Amino acid sequence: MNANNVTTKLYWDDCILAALREDIPWEDVSANAVVEEGVRGRAELIAKADGVLAGLGVFARTFTLLDPAAVVTAQCADGDEVTAGRVLAIVEADMRAILSGERTALNFLQRMSGIATYTRRMVRMLQGTATRLVDTRKTTPLLRSFEKYAVGVGGAGNHRFNLSDGVLLKDNHIGAAGGVRAAIERARAYAPFVRKIEIEVETLEQLDEALAAGADIVMLDNMRGERLTEAVRRAKGRAETEISGNVTCENIGEFAALGVDYISSGALTHSAPVLDVSLKHLTAIS
Amino acid sequence: MNANNVTTKLYWDDCILAALREDIPWEDVSANAVVEEGVRGRAELIAKADGVLAGLGVFARTFTLLDPAAVVTAQCADGDEVTAGRVLAIVEADMRAILSGERTALNFLQRMSGIATYTRRMVRMLQGTATRLVDTRKTTPLLRSFEKYAVGVGGAGNHRFNLSDGVLLKDNHIGAAGGVRAAIERARAYAPFVRKIEIEVETLEQLDEALAAGADIVMLDNMRGERLTEAVRRAKGRAETEISGNVTCENIGEFAALGVDYISSGALTHSAPVLDVSLKHLTAIS
Amino acid sequence: MNANNVTTKLYWDDCILAALREDIPWEDVSANAVVEEGVRGRAELIAKADGVLAGLGVFARTFTLLDPAAVVTAQCADGDEVTAGRVLAIVEADMRAILSGERTALNFLQRMSGIATYTRRMVRMLQGTATRLVDTRKTTPLLRSFEKYAVGVGGAGNHRFNLSDGVLLKDNHIGAAGGVRAAIERARAYAPFVRKIEIEVETLEQLDEALAAGADIVMLDNMRGERLTEAVRRAKGRAETEISGNVTCENIGEFAALGVDYISSGALTHSAPVLDVSLKHLTAIS
Amino acid sequence: MNANNVTTKLYWDDCILAALREDIPWEDVSANAVVEEGVRGRAELIAKADGVLAGLGVFARTFTLLDPAAVVTAQCADGDEVTAGRVLAIVEADMRAILSGERTALNFLQRMSGIATYTRRMVRMLQGTATRLVDTRKTTPLLRSFEKYAVGVGGAGNHRFNLSDGVLLKDNHIGAAGGVRAAIERARAYAPFVRKIEIEVETLEQLDEALAAGADIVMLDNMRGERLTEAVRRAKGRAETEISGNVTCENIGEFAALGVDYISSGALTHSAPVLDVSLKHLTAIS
Amino acid sequence: MNANNVTTKLYWDDCILAALREDIPWEDVSANAVVEEGVRGRAELIAKADGVLAGLGVFARTFTLLDPAAVVTAQCADGDEVTAGRVLAIVEADMRAILSGERTALNFLQRMSGIATYTRRMVRMLQGTATRLVDTRKTTPLLRSFEKYAVGVGGAGNHRFNLSDGVLLKDNHIGAAGGVRAAIERARAYAPFVRKIEIEVETLEQLDEALAAGADIVMLDNMRGERLTEAVRRAKGRAETEISGNVTCENIGEFAALGVDYISSGALTHSAPVLDVSLKHLTAIS
Amino acid sequence: MNANNVTTKLYWDDCILAALREDIPWEDVSANAVVEEGVRGRAELIAKADGVLAGLGVFARTFTLLDPAAVVTAQCADGDEVTAGRVLAIVEADMRAILSGERTALNFLQRMSGIATYTRRMVRMLQGTATRLVDTRKTTPLLRSFEKYAVGVGGAGNHRFNLSDGVLLKDNHIGAAGGVRAAIERARAYAPFVRKIEIEVETLEQLDEALAAGADIVMLDNMRGERLTEAVRRAKGRAETEISGNVTCENIGEFAALGVDYISSGALTHSAPVLDVSLKHLTAIS
Repeated sequence: MNANNVTTKLYWDDCILAALREDIPWEDVSANAVVEEGVRGRAELIAKADGVLAGLGVFARTFTLLDPAAVVTAQCADGDEVTAGRVLAIVEADMRAILSGERTALNFLQRMSGIATYTRRMVRMLQGTATRLVDTRKTTPLLRSFEKYAVGVGGAGNHRFNLSDGVLLKDNHIGAAGGVRAAIERARAYAPFVRKIEIEVETLEQLDEALAAGADIVMLDNMRGERLTEAVRRAKGRAETEISGNVTCENIGEFAALGVDYISSGALTHSAPVLDVSLKHLTAIS
Repeated sequence: MNANNVTTKLYWDDCILAALREDIPWEDVSANAVVEEGVRGRAELIAKADGVLAGLGVFARTFTLLDPAAVVTAQCADGDEVTAGRVLAIVEADMRAILSGERTALNFLQRMSGIATYTRRMVRMLQGTATRLVDTRKTTPLLRSFEKYAVGVGGAGNHRFNLSDGVLLKDNHIGAAGGVRAAIERARAYAPFVRKIEIEVETLEQLDEALAAGADIVMLDNMRGERLTEAVRRAKGRAETEISGNVTCENIGEFAALGVDYISSGALTHSAPVLDVSLKHLTAIS
Repeated sequence: MNANNVTTKLYWDDCILAALREDIPWEDVSANAVVEEGVRGRAELIAKADGVLAGLGVFARTFTLLDPAAVVTAQCADGDEVTAGRVLAIVEADMRAILSGERTALNFLQRMSGIATYTRRMVRMLQGTATRLVDTRKTTPLLRSFEKYAVGVGGAGNHRFNLSDGVLLKDNHIGAAGGVRAAIERARAYAPFVRKIEIEVETLEQLDEALAAGADIVMLDNMRGERLTEAVRRAKGRAETEISGNVTCENIGEFAALGVDYISSGALTHSAPVLDVSLKHLTAIS
Repeated sequence: MNANNVTTKLYWDDCILAALREDIPWEDVSANAVVEEGVRGRAELIAKADGVLAGLGVFARTFTLLDPAAVVTAQCADGDEVTAGRVLAIVEADMRAILSGERTALNFLQRMSGIATYTRRMVRMLQGTATRLVDTRKTTPLLRSFEKYAVGVGGAGNHRFNLSDGVLLKDNHIGAAGGVRAAIERARAYAPFVRKIEIEVETLEQLDEALAAGADIVMLDNMRGERLTEAVRRAKGRAETEISGNVTCENIGEFAALGVDYISSGALTHSAPVLDVSLKHLTAIS
Repeated sequence: MNANNVTTKLYWDDCILAALREDIPWEDVSANAVVEEGVRGRAELIAKADGVLAGLGVFARTFTLLDPAAVVTAQCADGDEVTAGRVLAIVEADMRAILSGERTALNFLQRMSGIATYTRRMVRMLQGTATRLVDTRKTTPLLRSFEKYAVGVGGAGNHRFNLSDGVLLKDNHIGAAGGVRAAIERARAYAPFVRKIEIEVETLEQLDEALAAGADIVMLDNMRGERLTEAVRRAKGRAETEISGNVTCENIGEFAALGVDYISSGALTHSAPVLDVSLKHLTAIS
Repeated sequence: MNANNVTTKLYWDDCILAALREDIPWEDVSANAVVEEGVRGRAELIAKADGVLAGLGVFARTFTLLDPAAVVTAQCADGDEVTAGRVLAIVEADMRAILSGERTALNFLQRMSGIATYTRRMVRMLQGTATRLVDTRKTTPLLRSFEKYAVGVGGAGNHRFNLSDGVLLKDNHIGAAGGVRAAIERARAYAPFVRKIEIEVETLEQLDEALAAGADIVMLDNMRGERLTEAVRRAKGRAETEISGNVTCENIGEFAALGVDYISSGALTHSAPVLDVSLKHLTAIS
């Protein structure tokens, strides 16, 4: 997904403000105690580790929300691979706004960049294959759009965003419907016609039934080795294929070699460690 | 911090509902397509890995918010060390509510449990010492109270919650005030008298100045080896001591051996991998 | 779409409460002036015209939100064709809650039923054909989910819900992308892979280009007569076809006869007159 | 009512933003896929039918909320009678903002203009009489202020806005109070003294009782022909008179001829068809 | 105004919750530290001074919002005159809920009771006269409905609630309109016909002009002694009269003696001291 | 506390807007009726009584929120002692914005200035002593930060802000814990280590126990005369001392003479009468 002004205006501003309120329930006692009102300052955003940057816009917006006169001059862009020690941006703003916004701005940036960094590493493993890495709904509650954006910056694609905008029939749905065919037919009758129908199958018999019923995408669950190879072969040209679950840097290459269309990974958003970034060298300017 | 009914009523309910809205912008197409209205179901919450559980109340609340008649029967409690395969709880509720709430409930639980698991591991390293592990403000935007609660479940303590409820004077504040003594005096004059004053010092000279000025807590930054030993010795009985930054399972023991009072770690909340949990075996009940 | 408890809990309750606040900024002066506190009453919901009922749940929820002890006993169900004079439901609740909620409850019900009534009439015109009637995004601001639900009650289907959950490339998009093929390719590269790609074409050349580029759905704009017949023929088996714009009860039959898959109509939601309903015979009960 | 900056700031901005969020739950996939970031565009707002314009300010505000640099140049004003084909305004803004805001802006404008158009037609029927047309509370939930404004643009007046700001005693209130006189007395004792008291009467006896009790306005319900003539005659000089319910273009003239002061019509807001308007000819500008 | 369930549900619950969030931004550290979870307690609400009680419902609602199982047993009712030392109510609830809600519940109750007490005293001064005491819009921001309710409990009436529901033309409006007559005519043409028109006049000439133009209520500003007597005499039977500003217990009797209809006092809501109330004798119950 | 831009942006703007919405549920009928759109005006803010000003920023912000082009030129500053008749500020803005915002702006200013005035008077009584006056949590619901700010303007200090940011163990907590020592130990174990522990003691025995257990602050409740003198003597150098409750201008001097560190007074925020201020001389400017 994209992080343009419309999304920022309609959603991200509110999230950033809510995060600031979480960190400043009434005032920043330390900053207000020692910094005079109306002093303008300058600080540097510095990478403390190597990685892929994501979220510079959110970082900058945190300061302009607190101080409309804040100016954040980026020295690199989302998607850039940065190295420890590099100055990523210069923040010029009211000193209190810099101090009060610092932690919130960094908390967004370090998390988004951590996801982009981790994603980029896995995407590299797929280079030269036709398989595409995508994310899942295993995101941090309330931060899904930030994280899906970071996944895109890292080079992977987005799966469905939520339960409303995509149909994915899992074992529980199939059980409730009474079978693969029935589940697909109910979904096609019920869902808006602009939706694709994806279904999770565990056996080749289920796969055949799903393909016969016209599934658009089949998620091949719990299949490994030859059975997986055969499943991909049968689906070819009839439906797109997806693999999910416990994909690691070690085994992702094997899956791609089978020609599967998509590999989805929850770890991209739920277990990527942050990228260490820091705001340093705050000085008053005149 | 505690996770009792007051916090749930005043804050967590809204967060859970917001997370549900993020995942269900209008309806769960898949569930509504294949599951009849009004069918009650039963599913099991199962651990897929070993770890410390945290967030069962949030997990359960997700379903009771969607279906007031939902019943979640816990088979273990927050703080328990669980092993892969164990059934942690039974959910009985409207089948659509189970399917629609599943991912949101798990997203909270896996993250909180991941933090508790990681924290417990570090706390173990401090056993037998007088040093206490505490968290930081490097939390996930909008989820701080959930994460601080999980840190407590893991066995560590909470540092200040935000910029309003604690004074921590860092290099930038000291620079702005014109020195350690001036910063402490300004803070004491400005902050409510019920606040302790904590200050970050980088040299023994700064430490002496802070102690002379009556700092309640000194954060010893960038000190290692003998200098750190000497700093802890000088502060003993005059102020509490804290160390922060890049504390790992490898080096945490050394810091504790020096007799420092508190070690704070941002990784507890920003880089703990999730604990894998899953909702399985959904069946209709009558 | 469906109107189950999850959607009600996450969205409709808030809308109903907001509508009540719009009608009662602080209190219902008339009711509070003349009705004693704590008197329970009974009233009848009566159809004043013939039509298809939609929104009984919203009607009832208005009263239970104001008075948890309210009981609304439906005497018919959403989708039923009712005739003028028929008692549709009995409301028993605190008399002040009945008087204060009456207008809001009716305002929802009359509008939703009006849409269902109008939709049912157009759906009838398509009986015996393979063409399906669907709605558009020309809905009342803030009420889209209520209206899309009512369309479903009337017997038609739902098109995409919003700009996030469906791709529809119109002339402006094609122009910006530099052509039909380019627009489709960009959309496929950008949009989550679970999205179908729909494109609006105005000529047979554009249609051919769209089919060659793999469009999933083609909207045949401004086509009439033979050209439309030819377009439907060419698309058959390669993409689904949709017609939109100025479809009336008079001409809808002709379009369907061409074998087009979908006809979308904005009038279903933006110009259906309300179904007249009334709350009558309020009496105190003991 | 008026649509000045105060109302816009305090209410309409939030409504417009909520409507945009309804249409863009996270991003406009189509626009973001095919339009480059930062391209400025120009489009024309065009009438597709004849009618009275209302809501140009809301239309324009939709774009300036998404893009503060948007400029909407009106070529006519609220209240103008426009004809099909006329260019009503020029929108210049970020192309993505134009595409993303288009439907929401039009949904407001077409509905408000539809109401103004319908209202103007009925107001024309009353020309030359002393009777004034007014609206009711039968408005679209959540959109009352937009609709009451549009009624004013069409040339009619506003009845009370809600249950808090006006007293209107109907049959149910009279029944609960135990009679016309009792109802009026209770209302006068209870309601702030700055309120007028309006009461609905069904018979000449009730009318006499209401006039004797000092009602400020009497709504003559269910009266027709001679009885109505007599009622208006009796009330003249003692109370203002209002007629409501099932007033159409056909019968409105007769009512006015009787000298009634006000005729209220719910159809103005609940059943006016929209005025067809469209945004066309989007082109990039430099 | 009344304080029934509808107002509580639509407004007061949100205000009480917001007040609780103001006092408990994440948790009640003291209560959670020393009180075990799940212990039920009992405490007494006691008057510490003599006065008129108002707000018992709000007091009770604070506890039931935090603990649905809370039971507040009132031993007196709003409007009762209580004496210091009297037990006003018994609260039984979760002990943490009692401790956490105590201050918020008392803050509402003490303020509302303070207003009722002060109002009752002034109302007494008017006993035996036809003059009625009413409030103004000089209320505490965000608490107007609570305060207008308390004024009613104290025995006075409510003036208009806000700028939307009442017309009051002051010197600034008259100046802008170009005179008393013009101001009244514009207001009558613009405001909904169900509104009374009130105007503030400073001279007998202005008064005559206002009466001639048909003002419903005249506020006699800055008039004292004979001029005021004459003004009341002239208005008698043609318009209601109101006096405002600097009315005290000392001079209120004189104004009433002149036969003025209404005396409005801002002090009722902006300067009444609180009534001291306290929650005492908390004990665990089983 | 401070009233800088961060607090204004994160909290006060929303409060001011909510207060404006309370006073203008849809429009200012009087202003819109008589004042033309787009006329700029000028008015003077005038003190009607002597006192200490507090809240000029909130006053000004009310107008700039309604009209971004509003200019409020202060002629004095928060903390200044003003005398009746003095012009405090000039407001230049859209005339409708001035009229519509007037009451809300004044309601904030008069209350905050009333608190500052009352506080200043009590602070004067402590001049020459080492005792500091502080506020309590007995504030107006929803307005705590405005009131705590005004207390600071008046010259007093702030006690804790809420139940989350400070530990204060009262009789109920001591009872629940089973004694003074147990309460302190539980609080120290539970609360973040950056919190001071304050406890309320009623006897010298409790005081000794509290000092022995390491309480940081002791609140000496119900102590008078010699016992109080002795308590202050014992605590000297071991804990800070606070007195609360029923402190008046008459007795505050005696308490200070005992050398107590802090005196807290709820009356500062709950019973200070407002400072009378008025907006006058509105004229159109060009």
